Amino acid sequence: MTRQQLIQQINDKQSFLCVGLDTDFDKIPAHLKTYPNAVFEFNKAIIDATKDQCVSYKINTAFYEAMGLKGWQAMEQTVDYIPSTHLKIADAKRGDIGNTSSQYAKAFFEKLKFDAITVAPYMGEDSVRPFLEYENKWTIVLALTSNKGAADFETQPMAGNNAHLYEKVITTIAKWGTTDNLMFVTGATKAESFAGIRKLIPNHFLLVPGVGVQGGNLAEVSKFGLNKDCGLLVNASRAIIYASEKEDFAAEAKTIASQYQFEMANYLKQKP
Amino acid sequence: MTRQQLIQQINDKQSFLCVGLDTDFDKIPAHLKTYPNAVFEFNKAIIDATKDQCVSYKINTAFYEAMGLKGWQAMEQTVDYIPSTHLKIADAKRGDIGNTSSQYAKAFFEKLKFDAITVAPYMGEDSVRPFLEYENKWTIVLALTSNKGAADFETQPMAGNNAHLYEKVITTIAKWGTTDNLMFVTGATKAESFAGIRKLIPNHFLLVPGVGVQGGNLAEVSKFGLNKDCGLLVNASRAIIYASEKEDFAAEAKTIASQYQFEMANYLKQKP
Repeated sequence: MTRQQLIQQINDKQSFLCVGLDTDFDKIPAHLKTYPNAVFEFNKAIIDATKDQCVSYKINTAFYEAMGLKGWQAMEQTVDYIPSTHLKIADAKRGDIGNTSSQYAKAFFEKLKFDAITVAPYMGEDSVRPFLEYENKWTIVLALTSNKGAADFETQPMAGNNAHLYEKVITTIAKWGTTDNLMFVTGATKAESFAGIRKLIPNHFLLVPGVGVQGGNLAEVSKFGLNKDCGLLVNASRAIIYASEKEDFAAEAKTIASQYQFEMANYLKQKP
Repeated sequence: MTRQQLIQQINDKQSFLCVGLDTDFDKIPAHLKTYPNAVFEFNKAIIDATKDQCVSYKINTAFYEAMGLKGWQAMEQTVDYIPSTHLKIADAKRGDIGNTSSQYAKAFFEKLKFDAITVAPYMGEDSVRPFLEYENKWTIVLALTSNKGAADFETQPMAGNNAHLYEKVITTIAKWGTTDNLMFVTGATKAESFAGIRKLIPNHFLLVPGVGVQGGNLAEVSKFGLNKDCGLLVNASRAIIYASEKEDFAAEAKTIASQYQFEMANYLKQKP
């Protein structure tokens, strides 16, 4: 998916919502658990219910790998089921030496037909490049994550200019790609850092997890993160997909997704 | 597997060799490619041929994911086939927020029966802890990797004491685990850094990739890396498993593995 196609979706729907499919078999409604492929049935219902409110789906690979072969199969089916209008993100946080990252890129961009993958920056350039080599695919590098552990390394100051590690990650890696194939993960729980991040990368899209259960504030994120092309994909997972534990789970997911969309439409009116 | 069991294996075999199963369908001998499960057949032959020379096998998950469902199945079969005497490492470089890392730990320690997994440190404590919570399992955190990209972030100096990022990773994360459940990845291509690393963590095991095709020097690694309990697992992948492209691939793999073992036995005599 190209940047222009993504922006068009955002404008058409007045939404920059990404729905996170962190589907855990233990948490899906009881009536679905008897289905032979319960996780895919759950995802299918969530996608059908929310696709008009969101522009992207993010599949958290951990939840599928935890189910073994059956999980990998449910992931394949889910990626195939997501409409081609929506940006399909593998939240996989991969990254390894060059010849191995090439295999990961093959796994997620060729074998599974994702449009984007999250990548860990620690191992540097040759661990990131293989993902960037694919045309019309997106590499989304971890910068400042939403969790408490971000304080351990990401926000530690570097020698020289005292930039935080995540700032060095952003400025270094921004040179390896373009605003057409590279995004950064910046957690919604760190909204106070968005203004600074926008000084470093005014035009890149940011993938923003941490709204909802993790407590991030959508108003703050929008205020400091929006750019002229929107430039944000804000993800909510648990708050949407587990909005209800009962048979009405899909309808309730739609309700929550609609609330996010409504709020986002307002913020989009105020973008720079 | 406990530390004591691992040390016993090393002493019995006079080897600290880990064989890396980075099995790429395109690179396996032609006569195997017609088998319905060619990758597993290849791994099985490599394991049968090398198990007396090595104490561990490391499965690089990228190569299996690149094959989709069939690859995940071949990985399951391979882990099951590795003898329980050998430390089974998932070279997966996972790491995410706490509730997601828990799912990865479940995937690799419960669903697949690995003894150890490699973990990326970038996201900090809550991304690493879920792996450390398993009894008799090992968390192997990336510190100083063997690739060129290590220079981008890992070897950058931090503010304050000018320690490199990888040194901060080691000293910080060493506090979260013990020498019984935590190892660090340190590339063989960076042998000049081993003496400094041993000052920080004299007793931890180090997983050392980069010998063989990547050009790391086993003599140097052993000189500066060995401790009284050995403390090293040195991995070779391509140099062993692709020693021959022909029908004799397993015999040739055994020959190369034996050469490593012979060299290692000599270094073990000189350990501190």
